[in-house]
Order: sequence, then structure tokens, then C-alpha cells
Amino acid sequence: MQADIICVGNELLTGLIENSNTGFLARRLWSLGIPVRESCVVADEENAIRTALERALEASELVILTGGLGPTDDDLTREAVAAILDLPLVENHQWLERLEGFFNERGIKMPESNRKQALFIEGSTLLENRRGTAPGLIVKKSGKLIVLLPGPPHELQVMFDEAVLPVLSKNNQGNLTKVKTLKVFGLGESLLEEKIKELGKWDLPAISYVARGYEVDLQIKGYGDPAAVNDSIERAENILRGLLGDYIFGSDDETLAGLVARLLIEHKMTLSLAESCSGGLLSDFVTDVPGSSKFYRGGIVAYSREAKEKLLGINSQLLDLEGEVSEATAKLMADGAREIFETDFGVGITGIAGPESDSSQNPVGLVYIAVSSNKGCECKKLKLIGGRRAVKERSSQFALDMLKKILEKHIDRADRSQ
Amino acid sequence: MQADIICVGNELLTGLIENSNTGFLARRLWSLGIPVRESCVVADEENAIRTALERALEASELVILTGGLGPTDDDLTREAVAAILDLPLVENHQWLERLEGFFNERGIKMPESNRKQALFIEGSTLLENRRGTAPGLIVKKSGKLIVLLPGPPHELQVMFDEAVLPVLSKNNQGNLTKVKTLKVFGLGESLLEEKIKELGKWDLPAISYVARGYEVDLQIKGYGDPAAVNDSIERAENILRGLLGDYIFGSDDETLAGLVARLLIEHKMTLSLAESCSGGLLSDFVTDVPGSSKFYRGGIVAYSREAKEKLLGINSQLLDLEGEVSEATAKLMADGAREIFETDFGVGITGIAGPESDSSQNPVGLVYIAVSSNKGCECKKLKLIGGRRAVKERSSQFALDMLKKILEKHIDRADRSQ
Repeated sequence: MQADIICVGNELLTGLIENSNTGFLARRLWSLGIPVRESCVVADEENAIRTALERALEASELVILTGGLGPTDDDLTREAVAAILDLPLVENHQWLERLEGFFNERGIKMPESNRKQALFIEGSTLLENRRGTAPGLIVKKSGKLIVLLPGPPHELQVMFDEAVLPVLSKNNQGNLTKVKTLKVFGLGESLLEEKIKELGKWDLPAISYVARGYEVDLQIKGYGDPAAVNDSIERAENILRGLLGDYIFGSDDETLAGLVARLLIEHKMTLSLAESCSGGLLSDFVTDVPGSSKFYRGGIVAYSREAKEKLLGINSQLLDLEGEVSEATAKLMADGAREIFETDFGVGITGIAGPESDSSQNPVGLVYIAVSSNKGCECKKLKLIGGRRAVKERSSQFALDMLKKILEKHIDRADRSQ
Repeated sequence: MQADIICVGNELLTGLIENSNTGFLARRLWSLGIPVRESCVVADEENAIRTALERALEASELVILTGGLGPTDDDLTREAVAAILDLPLVENHQWLERLEGFFNERGIKMPESNRKQALFIEGSTLLENRRGTAPGLIVKKSGKLIVLLPGPPHELQVMFDEAVLPVLSKNNQGNLTKVKTLKVFGLGESLLEEKIKELGKWDLPAISYVARGYEVDLQIKGYGDPAAVNDSIERAENILRGLLGDYIFGSDDETLAGLVARLLIEHKMTLSLAESCSGGLLSDFVTDVPGSSKFYRGGIVAYSREAKEKLLGINSQLLDLEGEVSEATAKLMADGAREIFETDFGVGITGIAGPESDSSQNPVGLVYIAVSSNKGCECKKLKLIGGRRAVKERSSQFALDMLKKILEKHIDRADRSQ
């Protein structure tokens, strides 16, 4: 089974309203193992809806339409679907009473226009709307399933989860049995492809990947018999781990910040930060993890030279000599944070986020990251691409990746010495 | 002229990546007066791209494709467009050199796969990519305009604004003459609706609004004759400002952080922060503004009690007596930051971001925000709704709004005393 999504609404075509329905439905369908073939947004015009629906029905067994179920003249989804399926629209008396009751309760006489919302396509199943006046509909015809949902996300989401999900789970013997995601960090898309191009040699389940900046999700998908799928996914995972080594930082829902948090909490260790070019974003990443107050003592955003001198105690002559953006400064920032907050680990980031370079003519994207611990201080030099926001994000991600690797080494060493 | 948008990418069909490109492009086209007929998302398959493109070219004069310009085997947009337009792909030597240089600078040999990114469609115009390796393309054929843009939003947006917008403005004489956006903060959607419901009394241009959390954009749209449009938009703006007072914080592309930055820079004043529950996010907001190093000296993320005592100098007994989440603590944090960083203004935020409440059983969402200056220290108590991330975001937004209002009062007072 595959699906098409058709979102109806002029407001989506102007970009004034973000279309969150497509993403929501796609994620739900994907988790059911139903791939989306195509999604589209069309105007509130009967012809546009009909054309899109015909096209979708030709290719997919499941078509979900959103929007256009309201009471106004430009709500035309019901009409368009009925016409294409060649089914009449009939008034549902029970729903009409419900609608009238809905308005009575609020002390209003039902506007005549709302009567339209009691129309449903003959033979269809009506879906309750706990949050609005437009019911949804499910129509089955010639082996196809057509689902009509209201446009407002808070109505659509509840309706989908309560009324559509159970129907789809029953109808779909989801071939997709299991998905395992390996999370990769630090490899560009093309370098990653270089490394995994030999995968074709083995008989492996489907592997695909999605890149988000420097983070790539490698997805291994298993179809059919669960036992066989478990075996083949495990085999694929082992091969991928062999090819990619510690570029793989985690799996499934894990994030770099979440992993760092888990390691620190499990081993009762503490963290502090000293940020310059990342401007507080690394601290924001760390504190997005629930429970971060267990290990995170605090940070200093040393956005000025004075802050580096006064708060982090970095010598003024050294700043003159080495520069604010330098390995020496990054290390002293990391050491300084660790000392001031009395933590096991300290991280320092200094660099040029742009749009302009600094007085030393360092290029935008030059970043130094240092991690300090009782085993000394390590530093990495990066040349990042992208604008101000991208440099902030990437330097913060790189810092988490570096910290995670150093934490693992520490823990490993501690285990062996026991 | 009307437009079709085609976004290419499997990752968009799984819902794993939010598709922000459609919304961005739709808004830009809308502001140019170019309506979008249909937008769709298709898979990384040459056939899917070709089918969507043929369909779009039949209906619209402008087709924008995003994604599928990368170096890997499943980047197929160039190939599909060339095939449909019946034009050959040729290697651009200049761009190839640029690509090689890009990798050389980073000390890496260019992967062979990236060579593909130097291919362009014969007769097309190449669009610079300042933020990545994939150039964009504009092709004109048989009165149609086809634009190919890279998928990553930070690459696409810069390229669109710098290279595509000028071409489209020249090609299109739209009806929509002007849009003025008023930015509202601090009013819920239904309260806003209450306040502006009398608008119908006046003969005004079209007004619509879009809500994003606590921020609402009110858009006034004028069609037709430019002089008349300017007058009617000005009238509408005056009426709205009368109804909403200082809930309106800015207009058009202004952000709260951008406005605060402008006021501070113009009046040569400086800022420092002391954050607890917002965990560095307010500092992140401030440093997202280019040029923030001109006024922002730095911040302290005091995520532990020890940090509040040691770095901000808050008395231990006071913390026992008043609690870490209290008006007294917020004020001492703001004062402390101002003193330590020697700035004109200091902001303190302390509260409960959740998921759990603190040892004093304060409820999740309780937040105190204080702003300190040479005129004293003001504090606000908020009860925010939402999860951990929402509390971080909203408390940071509220802090900016409060700071902005206090800055304006200061400036006003200074002007009058001159």
C-alpha cells in the first residue's frame, strides 16, 4: 500500500499558514510502513481538487485529503470527491441534529451555511470531530481508500489518531516490519556515499539516508517476516558499523546532546561551558535535555574580550599575542569554565560566526573547540561553511560530538583501571 | 504569471524533515503578486520529477524546483529537467575549478561524485551558492521560466533573495502592490480577534493574520494603484495601532531581538544576561542578530545553585529564604550580570522549565524575568504553558519584549531631558 496526500487551501498556497498537516500525516504513515508517493497543495477550487484526486487514485491505494470541509462556499472537498467517485451527497440527519445542538449550546442559531457540513458521501463512514464542526469521512471504492480530514491541525491530529489510524493498521499488512536508524555525525553526504558504496556487494535490506547539516540518519528497513527481518537488520548494522566506525554516534531517537547527558549522568560527572561564537546555543542544546540540571552546572557566554579576561581569567597579553580566535584561547576558555564551575569537564568554543570577519582577518567559519578534563585539554580547529546560524549550529554540534568521544575514552579508561 | 513549486526529496515524504521551502517560496512569490497554483513534494526518482514538471509546465509560466542538486546518485533534478526540456547537460569548467578549490581549502581532495555538481543545463544561467557546493540554475524556454534551487533552506533562501527575486520582479507586473506587516506580541489569537473585531466598520484594505506562538503577524494588503494603496494602508495601520497600542512591537521583517539590537546600537548601550531556566536560549536569540557583538558583552547560564552564588554573588541565605525561583533571585541575577559585565542593562531569568517541578514545588511554567539598569530593577512574574522547549522559548521572548519596552522608556526619558 502507498499513499498520496492532498492538502486543499488557498491559505497554504500563499505561505501565510505553515502546512504542518503534510509532515504530521507523512510521519504517521511512515511509522505504519505506508510510504507516501507524492504530496501536494491545491487551491480551493473544485477542478483543482478533482485533477489532483484523479492523479492520486491512479497511483496509490490510499488518498488522504485535508481541508475544504468547512461551511463556506469555497469549501469544496466533499463535492469534488463525490463527483470523481460518482457517488451522491446525502444529508446525515443525526449529524445535522448534532450540529444544531452544538450551536444551541452556545446560544446561537445555526447559520444556514453550516447545514452543508451534514452532507456526506453515500456509503462513507463518518469520523467524529471532538474539536470542531466538520466531521471527517472515509470512503472505500474499487479497492481504494479515500480519507477526508478537516484542515485545522488540532482537529485533524486527534481525528487521525483516534479514527483513521485503527482503520489503516487493519487494512495494511504493512510489509515494513522494522526500521533501525543509525545516526552519523561528521561526514558530508558525498563522503558518506563514498564510504558505503560497496554495500551493494552484500545482500542487505533497503538502506536510505537523510542528511540534516552535519548529521545524517541512515535507515535500514526490513520487510516481511519479523524473525528474518531482525537477522538481516542486525547484519546490515554490523556491516555499516564496520564501514563507518565512530562516525556512527547513536541509533534511533538518540541525539548527541542526549547521549552526552546519559554518559554524564550515569557516571556522575559534571559539565560547564564557555562559549564565544556559538553565543549560548551549545548551552541551549544541553539544556533541551530533560534532567540536564543533574550534570550541567552552567556556562559563560564570553562575547567580549573583557568577558574572556575578567570572567574566564584569560591573560590580556596572551589574547594580544594569540588572538581571541585561537587554539590557546579555546583551551583557556575550557580550562577556565571547568575551574570556575568546579566540574569534571569544561568546553570552550571560539570562532567567527560572521557575517564579517574579526580584526585579525580570520575567515568566517574558523572555529576552535576545546574540551578540558583532569586528563588535560584537547583542541580541534574547524573550517565551517554556511551563514551565521549554520556556524553557530555546526560548531555546537561538533563540540557535542567531540565531548562524547572524550567521555567515552574516559569511561573506558576508568573501567579498565578497575 | 502564476507559479508551481516542486520539492524533490524522499526525506520530505517521510515527514522526517519539515518542508520549510514551500512556505518560504510561497510567501516570497505572494509578496511579488505571483500566485502559486500548486505545490507538490515528489520522491528522488527521475520519473516522478519528470511527471510533476510536465504537469507544472502545462499550467504555469514559472516552475521552481528545490532539492536534488547534490553530488549523490539520487540527486536527479538536473537530469530530469534537462530531459523534459530536451536540452543537453554540459560541464562548467569554471564551476568545477571553484568546487575543487572549495575542497582544497579544507585540505580534502574533491570526491569524484562532486564533479556532477559542475554540470549545468545548456543555455541556463548559473546561480551562485555562497553557502554550499550546489549552484542553482535558471532556464528559460518557450516563454517558461524554470528555476532549480538547492534543498537546504539556508542555501535556498539566500540564493532566492539574491539571484531569483530580481529576475522575477523584472518579469512580473503583479496586482498586489504592497503588503505591510504589523508584528504583535503578547496577545493570544482570540484576544486579538476581540480587539480587532470592529475593523469591519471602516472601509479598509484586506487584513489577515498569522499566529506563531505568542507572536502574531497582522498583514495589510493593498491591490492596484500604488498611490491609493499607500494611503489606504497608512489609514489601516493607524487604526490598528490605535486598537492594539504597544502590543504592536514592530513591522515587516523586524524581530524582537533585532529591535532590541537596533535600539542598543543606536544609543551606544550595552547588554548582559543571567539565565537559569532558559538555559542559554535568550543569549542564542540575541547573538543570532548580526552585529550583536557591538552591544552584547556576554552572559552567565547559572544552571546550578552554586553558579548563582559564586558567579552572580547571590547570598546563600537569601536563596534559602526566597528560593532560586523568586522575584528576589531574578532581580539579583539581573543586577549581578550588569555589574559583572559592566553593562547598561542586565537581564535575569529564573523559573521552572519542567518536566518536573523543583524542590520547592513551584509549578512548571512559573518564570520570573528581571531587567536591571541605572534606573533600578523591574521584575515580571509569568505563568507559561507548554513543555520544556515552549517555556524556554516563551520566557526568552517575553524577556526581549520587556527589555524593549524598558529601553524605549529610557531613550524617551533621555530625549526629553536633553
